[in-house]
Amino acid sequence: MAQKPSIPKGTRDFSPEEVAKRNYIFETIKKEFKRFGFQPIETPSFENSSTLMGKYGDEGDRLIFKILNSGDFLRKADKDALTQNDSLKLTPSISEKALRYDLTVPFARYVVQHQNEIEFPFKRYQIQPVWRADRPQKGRFREFFQCDADVVGSNSLWQEVEFVQLYDSVFESLGLEGVTIKINNRKVLSGFAEVIGEKDKLIDFTVALDKLDKIGEEGVKKEMREKGISEEAINKIQPIFSLHGSFSEKIDVLKTILETSENGRKGIEELQFIQNAIEEMPLKIAKLDLDVTLARGLNYYTGAIYEVSAPETVKMGSIGGGGRYDDLTGIFGLKDMSGIGISFGLDRIYLVLEELGLFPETVTQNTKVLFINFGEKEAMYAMKAVEKLRNENIVAELYPDSAKMGKQMKYADKRDIPYVVLAGEEEMSQEKFTLKHMKSGEQSSLDIDTLKEKLKS
Amino acid sequence: MAQKPSIPKGTRDFSPEEVAKRNYIFETIKKEFKRFGFQPIETPSFENSSTLMGKYGDEGDRLIFKILNSGDFLRKADKDALTQNDSLKLTPSISEKALRYDLTVPFARYVVQHQNEIEFPFKRYQIQPVWRADRPQKGRFREFFQCDADVVGSNSLWQEVEFVQLYDSVFESLGLEGVTIKINNRKVLSGFAEVIGEKDKLIDFTVALDKLDKIGEEGVKKEMREKGISEEAINKIQPIFSLHGSFSEKIDVLKTILETSENGRKGIEELQFIQNAIEEMPLKIAKLDLDVTLARGLNYYTGAIYEVSAPETVKMGSIGGGGRYDDLTGIFGLKDMSGIGISFGLDRIYLVLEELGLFPETVTQNTKVLFINFGEKEAMYAMKAVEKLRNENIVAELYPDSAKMGKQMKYADKRDIPYVVLAGEEEMSQEKFTLKHMKSGEQSSLDIDTLKEKLKS
Repeated sequence: MAQKPSIPKGTRDFSPEEVAKRNYIFETIKKEFKRFGFQPIETPSFENSSTLMGKYGDEGDRLIFKILNSGDFLRKADKDALTQNDSLKLTPSISEKALRYDLTVPFARYVVQHQNEIEFPFKRYQIQPVWRADRPQKGRFREFFQCDADVVGSNSLWQEVEFVQLYDSVFESLGLEGVTIKINNRKVLSGFAEVIGEKDKLIDFTVALDKLDKIGEEGVKKEMREKGISEEAINKIQPIFSLHGSFSEKIDVLKTILETSENGRKGIEELQFIQNAIEEMPLKIAKLDLDVTLARGLNYYTGAIYEVSAPETVKMGSIGGGGRYDDLTGIFGLKDMSGIGISFGLDRIYLVLEELGLFPETVTQNTKVLFINFGEKEAMYAMKAVEKLRNENIVAELYPDSAKMGKQMKYADKRDIPYVVLAGEEEMSQEKFTLKHMKSGEQSSLDIDTLKEKLKS
Repeated sequence: MAQKPSIPKGTRDFSPEEVAKRNYIFETIKKEFKRFGFQPIETPSFENSSTLMGKYGDEGDRLIFKILNSGDFLRKADKDALTQNDSLKLTPSISEKALRYDLTVPFARYVVQHQNEIEFPFKRYQIQPVWRADRPQKGRFREFFQCDADVVGSNSLWQEVEFVQLYDSVFESLGLEGVTIKINNRKVLSGFAEVIGEKDKLIDFTVALDKLDKIGEEGVKKEMREKGISEEAINKIQPIFSLHGSFSEKIDVLKTILETSENGRKGIEELQFIQNAIEEMPLKIAKLDLDVTLARGLNYYTGAIYEVSAPETVKMGSIGGGGRYDDLTGIFGLKDMSGIGISFGLDRIYLVLEELGLFPETVTQNTKVLFINFGEKEAMYAMKAVEKLRNENIVAELYPDSAKMGKQMKYADKRDIPYVVLAGEEEMSQEKFTLKHMKSGEQSSLDIDTLKEKLKS
């Protein structure tokens, strides 16, 4: 009768230790979001399918989890689709709701729906799970949290600056050194395509360029040739393959390449504004770098593009990204609303902190003291002390049963509880408690006030 | 082209103010859970359908949201069910996963699946959303959070005591006076059925008794008669309709009624243990009361039954409940694991705190100071100050655009930001900032350190 329990592939149970560590990251990020003036919103886990479908391309549509209509859903089912055995065609008639695929589309929907209650520019953050029917693999899950901060309703480049500072502040709070905030600009990429006379091949061009890290210069050139980009064109942008040096030095090279492109010059100007501001207000822990190969869902971003890479010592890839997207809310009928946002990759940040041993010890600290249960009268004596300790914010517990001493001690040991209190008849008669340090075995007989003081420190 | 955006019925968007207030409740509850030694776990939003189906009765099965299989789901569809147009029969073949309906069944599944990693007794808390395809109505949603704390793996009555203290501590932390923690015991209810000779009508009997509040004594008796409970039987339990006085006085009456029932006597003993402990360790804010009409999903609970009612001045009903359920994990093959747990009704607690004005003002406090943007140079001057204030944990923002003064002031006003800083050429030349209090209109010219001090207080 009994089922062997399991969970769906690509999903996870989180143990107390994991929840504590995840919450530490969430709380750190939240604290910084708030300090920068971002306000939290939350949206429902499922949206009307019409809100989500068609917003992420065909592949996205496929990966959205659909919720089956309740009750006798076949009554409204598309009979043609049934006859044709066509799952794709049938879906809209038996499923009206779908699980959130990201936080950006629901945010855009929220802004449009609540536009009359919102003061623009609107700085919001949102930390909620999203779901994707992706093939699960190492580090890729079907349920995972996104942590996003966005501003909507202003074109100001100060926001670009602020997001660099926000990234820096979060990683400083997490104690994560060696992070690089890479920045690029969509207009620079458009500029490249313009100056090489391949404006219509912008996407092929940038998709290839984005792979420079992985397939190297020759690989990128090969892919460009395969996409019909001419040798002459490739030669024209040769200098970007060997861009190096400081942010300013890279900018100087770009200025030469992009001289004739208005778009390109505009992109450079935006990058310089950000660089200049960060020079005036130096970052605390991260490094800002210009990376012209950075594309990240190019069709989406219209200005700044960000990506954060983990310290080089850790093989991890990007732990955050974002950018500016004009017309964020256009899909829902509210025009001319520029948005810019960043997100943090929780799962990867978790792995990085774990690998580098950066979770503070206090994060997973649990019960401080276990009172051994010697029977009904002793337990009452213990519970009164437990209550007093709890009132001092000391996490104390009574072992619920008067089990064998060895069993209770083993429990304290396995749970890594640092102290136990032994209080039997003798202690009760003297109004004392025997405190035992689990590791050292050291014991002392204390009254309640001394016990409090001792456990507080 | 543009869609008029909306969200599925029974779901909600939460504004920054609402999120802040909800988080205040969550954080308060969490703090108390932790102080009592409970540890957090999290489970996936969707479970395998086989984990959930059949655990909540037919009505529950109907209300569980099912997730449509991805891809060409019709390929594996039950052809017979399709031919017969039978939605119910078709479902298992096109849907393998379902959204969590509560936190108790996933917790039981978690305990069984991870039994080798857990030290028992295991005190866990869990705060996550659940989903039910209920007909939405005032105060009833299709997505809502549950806040549960449970202990599994011990029969000790100290846990019953501890949950009363936990409820008390949470409501004290929330500043909510006038709460009553009502307690009953399933064994007392069984005792009633025994002594009136209607053992097999236990459920009919308690379902009727549970309605005493709503339909009154005559209503309850009428329902009992309709269910075939004899006049003689009803007369035997006549005293419970007029139970009043203190906990102890009620116990005395019960002792007389239940004299001949072993079950009943056991139930009374358990209630007395709890009452005695609470007398020794008085509650801080709540009142403990015995309510023999309390049943709450009787088939589930086997010992203590809790329900918390809001202060009488607020028309709200129960804001929490719980109880002991032996054999929590039996459905997943792990026998003899007694569990006891309580839950908090977030949405109702929210309404109560709102009605009584108990949310602290600091909860919704947002940005403290807005720097007016007078142009690029001034903005840089402002941003440097903003950065310094943020480093002191003062939430400061620069208006991102050098818009008209009136527009920027109106923005500060609408967002309830208490201060603005005006810093133009004159201030810059003197290294000063003009701080303006929005309500009083009071202005002062301050250097950066004085500005920090002023805004910190």
